[in-house]
Amino acid sequence: MDERVTRLFGKTNFMKTLNAQLTEARQGFVKIECNFSEKLTQHHGYLHAGVMTSLVDNACGLAAFTMMPENAEVLTVEFKVNFLKPAKTDKLIAVGKVLQSGKTLTICEGYVYDSTEDKLIAKMQASMIAIEQ
Amino acid sequence: MDERVTRLFGKTNFMKTLNAQLTEARQGFVKIECNFSEKLTQHHGYLHAGVMTSLVDNACGLAAFTMMPENAEVLTVEFKVNFLKPAKTDKLIAVGKVLQSGKTLTICEGYVYDSTEDKLIAKMQASMIAIEQ
Amino acid sequence: MDERVTRLFGKTNFMKTLNAQLTEARQGFVKIECNFSEKLTQHHGYLHAGVMTSLVDNACGLAAFTMMPENAEVLTVEFKVNFLKPAKTDKLIAVGKVLQSGKTLTICEGYVYDSTEDKLIAKMQASMIAIEQ
Amino acid sequence: MDERVTRLFGKTNFMKTLNAQLTEARQGFVKIECNFSEKLTQHHGYLHAGVMTSLVDNACGLAAFTMMPENAEVLTVEFKVNFLKPAKTDKLIAVGKVLQSGKTLTICEGYVYDSTEDKLIAKMQASMIAIEQ
Repeated sequence: MDERVTRLFGKTNFMKTLNAQLTEARQGFVKIECNFSEKLTQHHGYLHAGVMTSLVDNACGLAAFTMMPENAEVLTVEFKVNFLKPAKTDKLIAVGKVLQSGKTLTICEGYVYDSTEDKLIAKMQASMIAIEQ
Repeated sequence: MDERVTRLFGKTNFMKTLNAQLTEARQGFVKIECNFSEKLTQHHGYLHAGVMTSLVDNACGLAAFTMMPENAEVLTVEFKVNFLKPAKTDKLIAVGKVLQSGKTLTICEGYVYDSTEDKLIAKMQASMIAIEQ
Repeated sequence: MDERVTRLFGKTNFMKTLNAQLTEARQGFVKIECNFSEKLTQHHGYLHAGVMTSLVDNACGLAAFTMMPENAEVLTVEFKVNFLKPAKTDKLIAVGKVLQSGKTLTICEGYVYDSTEDKLIAKMQASMIAIEQ
Repeated sequence: MDERVTRLFGKTNFMKTLNAQLTEARQGFVKIECNFSEKLTQHHGYLHAGVMTSLVDNACGLAAFTMMPENAEVLTVEFKVNFLKPAKTDKLIAVGKVLQSGKTLTICEGYVYDSTEDKLIAKMQASMIAIEQ
């Protein structure tokens, strides 16, 4: 696993609050998983759209980060998510993939799957920016 | 405050996990507030984009819900968020407003402000769907 | 080629104005091509973002239409486009693919390529709605 | 009217093809109008979503351009559009407004109205980038 990604993920308190795990991190590709919990539900008892979005935003941001120079920080500029199915699953698997990486902006595609990794629950299209420190 | 909204918000466990408060709910307009907490931060120590999105998605969904018939449930179809500034604030104020309400789809605009309610931190454009039970 | 798609495309005057050609149409997949013309440029002399969007919106709409019942009409609910590269090409190739088709909404992914069909210039994520007549 | 905007609009061939007129251009605000024409319709005979998008993308791009330094060029990074009503009107009025202007990115809101300028037909949220020459 990419060490810079592991380190950055470790500093992201909100991922701990969601009890999310970083399970894959290589160039241009990051996977984050999160078990179902009653604490993370919306009004029907399914996982909240905000939980799915948080996971896949983080996966996309880290995937973009793998393409950026050593001294860069990554920030989300914008994203768009379509929710395809209710999140009736005991685990969410969020995948971020780099579609195009540029000097300033990196464009990513994000996917949220159910625990089988077969059923697509939500789809993201996102822009991330590299901030040089 | 709109009672149906209050009831629905009360059933949304994830809002409790974020320690978010429903502070306004009238026809086509909902406000949700959330104090800063170390548990909700991204890697720079600011509030996570996913937290902002969760709050404003919920505010938009509830605003749409105020326009729907008694027997309808509301679900998020899709949204898009632009993040304008880092969320350096001790409180987030998320506002959802209905732009157009239709039989099936309701389109909303969402705003995330800092604690002064003056500085716009993020802007959402969202589509909500009414599911008749 | 799907006949209903061919017929609908034939009724779309704006596609004629762009001199666009329908070159593929099967279930859940539509391709539209458009040659470079000086009439379609933005201020740098490249093809206008609006031209790319028009083509790929139309390709997605028709791809969604292939999944809809006989008596349905298709309308664009919303879309999001990321522009990845300037459209320096002598032909645009726009592809629409259905990601998920539902009773009311159909979600599509759209791609705009250069003439080699190798270089991705723009990426769309769209929601189409079936209107029963 | 802002002269740089007028000059840039004049170089945009596609706006001439649509027979669009620049009718207002001041800091952070641009208006473009376009009469109905049979050449610009979709399959129901209404103005095509691509036409609306082209106009409002151009209005947002030019609005962003008014905030940029002398030596900058403007390009569309991404946008999202919700279509609220069919474009049954004899004239489209597209308005672009700057929501936040930064050194690199400028975020805009775009509106497409009917000829009365009262009925909102489509709503855009867009990111524009300044390219220094």
